[in-house]
Amino acid sequence: MTDTLNRSHPAPAAPAAPVTAAHAALDPADGERAYALDREFVFHSWSAQGALKPFVVAGAAGCEVWNYDGERYLDFSSQLVNTNIGHSHPTVVAAIQKQAAELATVAPSHANLARGEAAQRIVEKAGPGFAKVFFTNGGADAIENAIRMARLTTRRHKVISTYRSYHGNTGAAIASTGDWRRIPNEYAFGHVHVFGPFLYRSEFHSETAEQECERALRSLERTIQAEGADTIAAILLESVPGTAGVLTPPVGYLEGVREICDRYGIVWIADEVMAGFGRTGEWFAWQGADINPSRATPDLIAFAKGVNSGYVPAGGVVISPAIAAAFDERVFPGGLTYSGHPLAMASIVAALDAMTEEGIVENAKTIGEKHLGPGLRALAEKHPMIGEVRGMGVFWALDLVTDRGTRAPVGADVIGRLKAELMARHVLPFAADNRIHVVPPCIVTPAEVERALVAYDEAFTAVAAG
Amino acid sequence: MTDTLNRSHPAPAAPAAPVTAAHAALDPADGERAYALDREFVFHSWSAQGALKPFVVAGAAGCEVWNYDGERYLDFSSQLVNTNIGHSHPTVVAAIQKQAAELATVAPSHANLARGEAAQRIVEKAGPGFAKVFFTNGGADAIENAIRMARLTTRRHKVISTYRSYHGNTGAAIASTGDWRRIPNEYAFGHVHVFGPFLYRSEFHSETAEQECERALRSLERTIQAEGADTIAAILLESVPGTAGVLTPPVGYLEGVREICDRYGIVWIADEVMAGFGRTGEWFAWQGADINPSRATPDLIAFAKGVNSGYVPAGGVVISPAIAAAFDERVFPGGLTYSGHPLAMASIVAALDAMTEEGIVENAKTIGEKHLGPGLRALAEKHPMIGEVRGMGVFWALDLVTDRGTRAPVGADVIGRLKAELMARHVLPFAADNRIHVVPPCIVTPAEVERALVAYDEAFTAVAAG
Ligand SMILES: Cc1ncc(COP(=O)(O)O)c(C=O)c1O
Ligand SMILES: Cc1ncc(COP(=O)(O)O)c(C=O)c1O
Repeated sequence: MTDTLNRSHPAPAAPAAPVTAAHAALDPADGERAYALDREFVFHSWSAQGALKPFVVAGAAGCEVWNYDGERYLDFSSQLVNTNIGHSHPTVVAAIQKQAAELATVAPSHANLARGEAAQRIVEKAGPGFAKVFFTNGGADAIENAIRMARLTTRRHKVISTYRSYHGNTGAAIASTGDWRRIPNEYAFGHVHVFGPFLYRSEFHSETAEQECERALRSLERTIQAEGADTIAAILLESVPGTAGVLTPPVGYLEGVREICDRYGIVWIADEVMAGFGRTGEWFAWQGADINPSRATPDLIAFAKGVNSGYVPAGGVVISPAIAAAFDERVFPGGLTYSGHPLAMASIVAALDAMTEEGIVENAKTIGEKHLGPGLRALAEKHPMIGEVRGMGVFWALDLVTDRGTRAPVGADVIGRLKAELMARHVLPFAADNRIHVVPPCIVTPAEVERALVAYDEAFTAVAAG
Repeated sequence: MTDTLNRSHPAPAAPAAPVTAAHAALDPADGERAYALDREFVFHSWSAQGALKPFVVAGAAGCEVWNYDGERYLDFSSQLVNTNIGHSHPTVVAAIQKQAAELATVAPSHANLARGEAAQRIVEKAGPGFAKVFFTNGGADAIENAIRMARLTTRRHKVISTYRSYHGNTGAAIASTGDWRRIPNEYAFGHVHVFGPFLYRSEFHSETAEQECERALRSLERTIQAEGADTIAAILLESVPGTAGVLTPPVGYLEGVREICDRYGIVWIADEVMAGFGRTGEWFAWQGADINPSRATPDLIAFAKGVNSGYVPAGGVVISPAIAAAFDERVFPGGLTYSGHPLAMASIVAALDAMTEEGIVENAKTIGEKHLGPGLRALAEKHPMIGEVRGMGVFWALDLVTDRGTRAPVGADVIGRLKAELMARHVLPFAADNRIHVVPPCIVTPAEVERALVAYDEAFTAVAAG
């Protein structure tokens, strides 16, 4: 139960004491004002606006957020699975403050030191298969630009991605998305969707992981042949599909994708927006323990979220030497006003340095292996509602079922009650479809995991009884 | 020549003295490192990568930026026409620093005070025709979401926009763009392009502004009829097309667009990403002096850039009551991880408050009317290369020609030489096609305008002689 982090700043305070000066100075009236202003003036993502009752967040530090009544919640959502380094990390905050005073914004065509330093660090983490970084504001525009690079270098137009995926909400990115969010947003053409490997709910009638891997690869290859290999620019895959349910790929799958891409001259775009920068216990999910990274290196990596824990909106594409060089003489027809934004870049530099120095990625791995993984599997033994526990690092999903035999998913009512029970126990949950995703910051401690596991346990008991 | 701003913080220092502590502490070796890292690791927007020689920016304050040798440049580009409030505005910097320490990031589904306060201020500036704000990271995703709202509320799919336009570089936004950047990026369907009004290079054989207005409106309406009015979801227009050349619309044009939209049940999306928040001397360009805003109110306003001068990546859509209400019961299928990002929101609140308190928008108007407009027109009298001076506020273009009779545009070589002459005179220029855009921050002083005008004058003389 020791803290496995190597931090030079103090660990988060014990739950009872005020965490920061801001936490000590909270005014509940501000919370009421925040709620009222939100309901009157703010239009929310992915929602019908009428019935929303948003939780008001006043501040946050480490693995906790609090409201204006000073009530503290363990953040096991990492917001949208982005605060890998936790909230209010002191050296990242300081770097943002310093850069804000010196140079907040600059045109992408000019150079600035923070941008070069951020790019250098990212290329270093990605390894020898990568040369340069193109920066964006988030995940969707990272995907947009990765697709653009693939289309232009292959001179082909189609993109294959999976049904169980989310790649962002701009025109081309949403068309490459597989889940329901694509349906009302299909403004583009040339996007082909296949099923990826997912043994617990196999589309390939598989009984073993080996079968699922082999059949998913065969299905991918048959689709390429049927669509015409020389029309396919890219295969776009979340290395570990995240929002779709933390679908850890079977052993050998990513190596198989690399082989297929090589065979047909297709660019492999790894979407590491959610999986990257520590979430799986690796810098990138494709560098995982069960994967041979030298045989599973993508051509392009789309990233966002964990790269700076979202302290400033940022994302980008890590580019292979070959694709980077293809634009040495030829204009790359992509861009955005805030590409390589100094404030975002300074936060990336500070976040990556802190993650490296404090062993934050290693912590995520250890937490997954020693604490969260075993703890969630123990929960599953106790609660028949938990059909499967999937994940690694600090990236886990509990696939909830009404019946372990049929694996029928639980309904929205069950998820709603679970969320309420968890909030009542001061755990901020992440829910998607019939699942609870257990996705704390990478800095989470064994003690915090223990507290959360108690809350999950009680919540399952309460919902099963109710 | 007095400073027309009402600021409580000190005005920018005189050119000789160090501007800030950061400026005093510059190290030229950092400049070399920034350049080398950029060339090795950074992939740039809109460029062939091989021959780039980016200008390295070390810091900035007010209307000036400087390199690591301490050389100061008057920023008459506002970077990408975004630093309306100037660089390093002290209260905006302080607000970012404070918010960074309290709560940098939060999921869009939760509420936070800065977001509500930002939305309230924006709705207030937009006036009674508007109810709510949806936040994004920049201009492209603002356009994406405005189009999405228009398509879903009209249940039609086509979007009409103009050839001379730029709306951003994501899949649907780029397809609605009219200029060359659309060509390699046309992944979407249902985008129809028309020519807008532009008397100096009329597509309608017009001789007067009245004719150009009437003919452009007629051409728009005929296109709607020919495409089938009940297929058209939206007309998407930059209120003043910016990158295309600061094409100020003729009197009556925007009122005419409103009428056409009403007649056919079409949503008018005003793209105010570049024109909005002070650039034209108004909060929004459609509120201009020559425009009757009660007869020219759009349904949706896309914004970014000037709302917070780009200190933190941010953008969004201001939404009419009717369109906002259409999603009260129905899910809006759009979103992004950093929608309503607290750091961005805090910078918006501080920027809008400073703009209001210091009279920054009024300053832009006065500068345009009394200093920049007359100064640029005087330049045109002296330099035959200047075919037309267009603009208002701090939003001007010099349309450069080889011959005033034929109006043939100057070539890239002339623009290249002009840029070099301006840089040599320590003015950071903005160039597009055959034009120099004169787009300083809205806080620019008469004295700074005077300095820049001398530089432009000398540069034109040098290029004409060379
Ligand atoms: C795998 C993946 N790709 C892309 C995105 C889109 O990122 P953003 O919301 O920053 O546009 C997300 C967001 O959740 C994601 O999880
Ligand atoms: C009018 C207009 N719309 C949209 C955009 C796109 O904004 P962004 O670069 O932030 O995506 C721009 C950018 O210059 C613009 O000028």
